[in-house]
Amino acid sequence: MGNLSYMDPKDVRNLIRQNNLVRPTAGIAQGYTQANLAILPKELAYDFLLFAQRNPKPCPILDVTEVGSPEPKMVATGADLRYDIPKYRVYKKGQLHEEVLDLEKYWTKDLVAFLLGCSFSFETALLKNQIPVRHIEENCNVPMYITNIECRPAGVFSGPIVVSMRPIPEEMVVRAVQVTSRFPAVHGAPVHIGSPSSIGIKDISKPDFGDPVTINPGEVPVFWACGVTPQAVAMKVKPDLMITHAPGHMFICDIRDEDLSAF
Amino acid sequence: MGNLSYMDPKDVRNLIRQNNLVRPTAGIAQGYTQANLAILPKELAYDFLLFAQRNPKPCPILDVTEVGSPEPKMVATGADLRYDIPKYRVYKKGQLHEEVLDLEKYWTKDLVAFLLGCSFSFETALLKNQIPVRHIEENCNVPMYITNIECRPAGVFSGPIVVSMRPIPEEMVVRAVQVTSRFPAVHGAPVHIGSPSSIGIKDISKPDFGDPVTINPGEVPVFWACGVTPQAVAMKVKPDLMITHAPGHMFICDIRDEDLSAF
Repeated sequence: MGNLSYMDPKDVRNLIRQNNLVRPTAGIAQGYTQANLAILPKELAYDFLLFAQRNPKPCPILDVTEVGSPEPKMVATGADLRYDIPKYRVYKKGQLHEEVLDLEKYWTKDLVAFLLGCSFSFETALLKNQIPVRHIEENCNVPMYITNIECRPAGVFSGPIVVSMRPIPEEMVVRAVQVTSRFPAVHGAPVHIGSPSSIGIKDISKPDFGDPVTINPGEVPVFWACGVTPQAVAMKVKPDLMITHAPGHMFICDIRDEDLSAF
Repeated sequence: MGNLSYMDPKDVRNLIRQNNLVRPTAGIAQGYTQANLAILPKELAYDFLLFAQRNPKPCPILDVTEVGSPEPKMVATGADLRYDIPKYRVYKKGQLHEEVLDLEKYWTKDLVAFLLGCSFSFETALLKNQIPVRHIEENCNVPMYITNIECRPAGVFSGPIVVSMRPIPEEMVVRAVQVTSRFPAVHGAPVHIGSPSSIGIKDISKPDFGDPVTINPGEVPVFWACGVTPQAVAMKVKPDLMITHAPGHMFICDIRDEDLSAF
C-alpha cells in the first residue's frame, strides 16, 4: 500500500474508491488539502452557497459541483464524490440515517456537492511554525464551542458560529495570527483571542463538541471558525436529504495547502 | 453640498437618491469602498454566484441581496439599490436598452443584486504607496484587454478574463504585488506581470475597452483582473433583463477599503 503520508492523492483516492482504506484521513498525502463534504438538494444549493459567501470564515468553499455531477473539477479532476471519501453520513430531515462507504444508492441528478476547507490545513501551518496544537499532542478531538456570534443569514439558513479552540503560548499568539491569516480558504485568521465569555462560551472545560484539552499557565485560548458551522446550520433546516463525510474521514484534493495561501 | 471627498457615504447616497448627484463617483467619500453593480433575474443568480465563487479575482463579491430585496445589508444597511446609484444601464437580451437614474420601473420581486469589488479600492492602496496610476495621471479611462485566460465556467456562464493594465516602474513591481495582495475582495494581486502576448494581448497600444496609456522606458505592464469580466460573461447569455451601474457611477458602501484587507 506504500507510505500513505507521501502517497499521491489520486492513488489514495483509488484505494478509498475500492474500500481499501476505511479510516480517518489525518496525516495521509501530506501537504495536500483535505476538505469537508456537504451534499444538498439543488433547491437548497443557492441559499447554501450564498450563506457560505456571506460567512467565509466558518464556510470556506473550495469547490461546488455542477448540479448532478459528482466531480469536483476545481480541486480534483476525475474524482468522484460518490466513492472517493472513506465514510459518509446520510441525514434525513436532520436525523442521522446511516453511515455508508459509498453513495451509490443515494446519489441523484438533483444533488450538489460542496467541498469546504478544513482545519487540517492551517494546523499544518501552525505546526510548521513550531506552534503547538494541543489536541494533536493529547491525541483527542479538537474542542468546539457554540458562540454568541451569529452568522449572517442567507435565505433559509441561519445560526451561530461554531469555533474550535487551541491554547497558544502567549509569546506565539501574534505568529499564530500571521501564519493562519495566509490561509483564508481554510478558515484563516482566528475569530477571537482570549476571554471565552466574550463570545458566549460559559465553560471552556466543557466543549459543545469534541474533547476538552489542557490549557497551561501562560497560554491563551485562541478561537478559529469551525467547519461544523455550515453543517449545524444546514441541519437546522432539516433537509429531506443531506450527506456529509463521517468525522475525520475527509476528501483529499489534488491541490496543496500552499496553493490556497493568499500571499 | 459640503466637500464630497470627505462626506459620509449615507449623506452621499441621500444626494444620489434625490438625483442631486448625477456624476461619476471617483474621489467621493474617500476611504469608503465603491462597488460595481450587476442585477439579474433569480433564475440566473445561482449560476452567477457560483461563477463568482469560482473566479474570485475578476468577480470579487461584496454583497448579494435577498431575492427581491434592493437592500445590500452586508455593506450598507438601509441603502436601496433601486435609487442609490447615480446612473444605471438597463440591458435587454444583452443589448443596451436605456440609461436611467433610478430603477423604479424595472425593479421586480424576482431580481437579485450583486455588488462586486472595484479597482478604485486597490488603486487607492497603490497611490498611498507612491506607486503611480497612469490613467489617473493622464485623466483617461484605464486600458482593458480581453485575455486568453479562460474563467472557470459555471452553469450557463463562461468566457475569458478581462484585465486592466497599469504600467509600473520596475523597481516598484514587488511593492505593487504586496500592496494589492492585501485586498483579495477588490481584485487582489495582479494576474500577470510583463509580456502582454503571454496572456493573448496582441497590441498593448490597442485596448479592447478604455483608453491606451503611456508606458515609459523602465516600466512594466502589470495586469489585474477586471470587473468588466462578469458583466461581459453575463451579457453573452443575453438575459431577458440585466442592469448594471453606468461606467464610473458606482455604489458607495458604508464599509471602508481597510475593512476588506486580508491582513
